[in-house]
Amino acid sequence: MIPTIEWKDNRVFMLDQSRLPIDVVYVECRDYLKVAEGIKKLWIRGAPAIGIATAMGIALAAQEISAGDPLKFGQKLEPVFGSFIASRPTAVNIQWAVDRIRGLLRKWKDETVPALKAMLIEEAQKILAEDIEANKAIGRWGAQFIRDGDTILTHCNAGSLATGGYGTATAPMLIAQEEGKKFQVIADETRPVLQGARLTSWELMQAGIPVTLITDNTAGALMKRGEITLAVVGTDRTVMNGDVANKIGTYTVAVLCKEHGIPFYVAAPMSSIDFSIPSGDLIPIEERSAEEVTHIGTCRIAPEGVKVRNLAFDVTPAAYVTAIITEKGAFRPGDLTRLASSDTDLDAIRITAGR
Amino acid sequence: MIPTIEWKDNRVFMLDQSRLPIDVVYVECRDYLKVAEGIKKLWIRGAPAIGIATAMGIALAAQEISAGDPLKFGQKLEPVFGSFIASRPTAVNIQWAVDRIRGLLRKWKDETVPALKAMLIEEAQKILAEDIEANKAIGRWGAQFIRDGDTILTHCNAGSLATGGYGTATAPMLIAQEEGKKFQVIADETRPVLQGARLTSWELMQAGIPVTLITDNTAGALMKRGEITLAVVGTDRTVMNGDVANKIGTYTVAVLCKEHGIPFYVAAPMSSIDFSIPSGDLIPIEERSAEEVTHIGTCRIAPEGVKVRNLAFDVTPAAYVTAIITEKGAFRPGDLTRLASSDTDLDAIRITAGR
Repeated sequence: MIPTIEWKDNRVFMLDQSRLPIDVVYVECRDYLKVAEGIKKLWIRGAPAIGIATAMGIALAAQEISAGDPLKFGQKLEPVFGSFIASRPTAVNIQWAVDRIRGLLRKWKDETVPALKAMLIEEAQKILAEDIEANKAIGRWGAQFIRDGDTILTHCNAGSLATGGYGTATAPMLIAQEEGKKFQVIADETRPVLQGARLTSWELMQAGIPVTLITDNTAGALMKRGEITLAVVGTDRTVMNGDVANKIGTYTVAVLCKEHGIPFYVAAPMSSIDFSIPSGDLIPIEERSAEEVTHIGTCRIAPEGVKVRNLAFDVTPAAYVTAIITEKGAFRPGDLTRLASSDTDLDAIRITAGR
Repeated sequence: MIPTIEWKDNRVFMLDQSRLPIDVVYVECRDYLKVAEGIKKLWIRGAPAIGIATAMGIALAAQEISAGDPLKFGQKLEPVFGSFIASRPTAVNIQWAVDRIRGLLRKWKDETVPALKAMLIEEAQKILAEDIEANKAIGRWGAQFIRDGDTILTHCNAGSLATGGYGTATAPMLIAQEEGKKFQVIADETRPVLQGARLTSWELMQAGIPVTLITDNTAGALMKRGEITLAVVGTDRTVMNGDVANKIGTYTVAVLCKEHGIPFYVAAPMSSIDFSIPSGDLIPIEERSAEEVTHIGTCRIAPEGVKVRNLAFDVTPAAYVTAIITEKGAFRPGDLTRLASSDTDLDAIRITAGR
């Protein structure tokens, strides 16, 4: 598995995903500004991955700070926090990483400055390790649904590139591969931004998992021929009633799965489940620029001045979802609401491949 | 409506569709070799359109022939026929046009050579006019299903550019527009070759019909929001039981329509209905090159060496089709078999918007 981001020799090495799959280039970040630039310029993308990058960037900045005491040290980090938050203002994981580190600095107020510098490096690596662990747990709960001979459809990229490692939708595939299972993956190219063509197919090839790229138009025909046995996708936000927001086209995959009796799984870290929203109708859907549709790279493919509708996400109602796979287990979407309560007996509501 | 191909001043003017929508350029063909080159290089495409081009190219060649009698005249046209058939060997309409002209030359064996030259020009213009008439008839039978306020989804290009004029799937839209109805069209971009982005959206803009371009991934989300009220597509081949072969992704549109209770219409000239094949399972499906998926123009969008599945067409079973609209009327797909017989009372099986 190709690492998305690494801390090595007091530097951050970041895979420049904007150049994939044509070039595989790591950017060596010697200071935090380079890390923030990488977030801004989409060298690194995916909610968990940019949270990790933020923590590593803060640790990098911390090494350069001269401060007499922890309070001054913390004050000097504030502009660094601001730079990261400004790099992608709507990215919730940047704020999450900043809040986590601010909280720790308050807790660590009696440490020495040199100790804090080391502790921030450790913390960044801990955030990376926790993310990988959560994904591996999703992978273990999800791998049970993959059998020898399966052909798995996936949409967009919820792969290791979007995370610290293992990915979310790809984690069950990677764990099933470690378990020695034989299966193949079909990757939807995922217009308009082509994350499936550019990223998912590339990272599965790197991982040695047999993968076939198709246009988004082809999934239905393959299902009708019996050539797809399950679908696994990621999610940007899943809400209380089990409705799932994910990349545009995910809903179409779910409808096609229902029509053909194919199980449709959603890999969702607990952090992506928003218990504050009761139903998918209430999830705001971003509409993005026409250029994503009218151009590919620098090639214009549509008439000048054509009107475009470019919804970035769609919502798949819970009724289409076979199971939501989290690091705590796989659950029926209707049972998500019970995960919000700490006294739920998870064993009683987990679903397994056998039942 | 922009003409696809025209006979003017003893020359053929052909819109170079390979340069659309970036450039709108007519190629002036002074000899038949230029017309054949246009067919080969896809300046003109679509089964009816290349049949018309073939007849016009033959008429152009005929003007240059010196022959003492009709028999020698016909013999000197044989290499011309061969050039057209060689330009796109699998295009059934080239052979159809050649057969039609060979048959006429046999019938016209007592005419003078100058008369034959004029009659071939007339015949080419007649083929164009017949095609436009058939499409307008499809349009008249189809327009009844379009109401004020409708939003019509279409997939790929079954527009006037593929025909002599009016198109097949677009004919009901153009006639409804002539009738003063107010509606809009959503055009799927139609990966991999992007006929919807490049051609359909362009020609509807030229015709003054409000059109919005979407990625193929977006249709499902718009249907779920209630923003699409009917779908109209073309067909490459429809068979006896009403199963419809058309551009890849058409089947997905049909499944989405069924899921949302949206009528799904297929515009099919009688010439595209193949009564020799009982069921869609028996239609051979062409698989095309990986490059159509891995590249857009000259931009590579997928990893070097990735495996690709590129089905050019899919088959939509008759059960998903609300009506098949031909120049003889709109019919339930299950009634197509009765069209094969000449003693069927068409009035008894035609369906109309009212019933």
